[in-house]
Amino acid sequence: MKIIIIGASGTIGKHVVKALEADNEIIRVGSKSGDYQVNITDVNSIKALFEQVGSFDALISTAGDGHFGPLAQMTDADFRVGIDSKLLGQVNLVLIGQHYINPKGSFTLTSGSMAHDPIVLGSAVSAVNGAIDSFAKAAAIELENGVRINSVAPTVVEESPEYFPFFKGQIPVAMHRVAQAYVKSVLGAQTGQVYPVL
Amino acid sequence: MKIIIIGASGTIGKHVVKALEADNEIIRVGSKSGDYQVNITDVNSIKALFEQVGSFDALISTAGDGHFGPLAQMTDADFRVGIDSKLLGQVNLVLIGQHYINPKGSFTLTSGSMAHDPIVLGSAVSAVNGAIDSFAKAAAIELENGVRINSVAPTVVEESPEYFPFFKGQIPVAMHRVAQAYVKSVLGAQTGQVYPVL
Repeated sequence: MKIIIIGASGTIGKHVVKALEADNEIIRVGSKSGDYQVNITDVNSIKALFEQVGSFDALISTAGDGHFGPLAQMTDADFRVGIDSKLLGQVNLVLIGQHYINPKGSFTLTSGSMAHDPIVLGSAVSAVNGAIDSFAKAAAIELENGVRINSVAPTVVEESPEYFPFFKGQIPVAMHRVAQAYVKSVLGAQTGQVYPVL
Repeated sequence: MKIIIIGASGTIGKHVVKALEADNEIIRVGSKSGDYQVNITDVNSIKALFEQVGSFDALISTAGDGHFGPLAQMTDADFRVGIDSKLLGQVNLVLIGQHYINPKGSFTLTSGSMAHDPIVLGSAVSAVNGAIDSFAKAAAIELENGVRINSVAPTVVEESPEYFPFFKGQIPVAMHRVAQAYVKSVLGAQTGQVYPVL
């Protein structure tokens, strides 16, 4: 299976690569590293990526920035960081990628547990995560030729200790558990699902 | 209680006005009609509204456009219609309005059942609705001085027969039931809740 992984060198992405590389052709994509580069906030960059990579069987996105900060000082511009990157970046990978994906292929996006389990400073990211989960549920009923879509919604992960102070009392999840949610999405047959990793 | 209703002359808004006007001071706001006008896609217009209206006890938003159309032809620009209007329009009413609202006041936003119960042509609106629900849950834990926030998530409503063909098998809800969800949010004491109206 030819699998494009966006964010392949990232905290989560590198574990997803490791979980899938033995049995599949992995196309590693990053903003600066990997086999190909993409700026997911730029639709022309996304189009150029698919033109270069050609048809594929699965796309996994573990990419996207967001703004953390207090609601009391949050601005429209702050809120739009995650909208343009983590939300529309991933949505546009699907909107454009649907024209390049092979029949019975799959898209797997990354949201996060904050959609329903918020933390202080996280309201903009919560909104983005909720949007991604709902988009996956909705896109699933329209994708053609048996193409599937799911989202993976992890809580804070073991390899991101810089976030632990913001998730007091939340037990971080092991990277192999996170990676397996993406494996389940790609190698399973479900669609329109949100896979929490808690 | 001084209650600002954004979208006061709309399908839902006019019923919310009717449910609350006997016992409260209602500030009717619309894009073109009402006591005041606002363009919710413009932060300067939102700021000007609050400067004119001054402090208030509750804000209800029943406003916001979105794009309906097939996923197979959807573009970034299509998707951004609802992001800029129904999502960021309502979010900015909160981000800016939090600096004008009275202690123990409340914000009530409008999402919709499509966040979790999608229809064909609705993927962009589903995403927006999911974002609003998650934003309300997250903002609730940061709003200060006892200020509350909830979202109301109706399915297709009785007074919108033009949408019935897209919601086959979905029993439309009566307007008074929708209006009462807003009443519950404003006159109740809960926060961070999504009130489905099904």
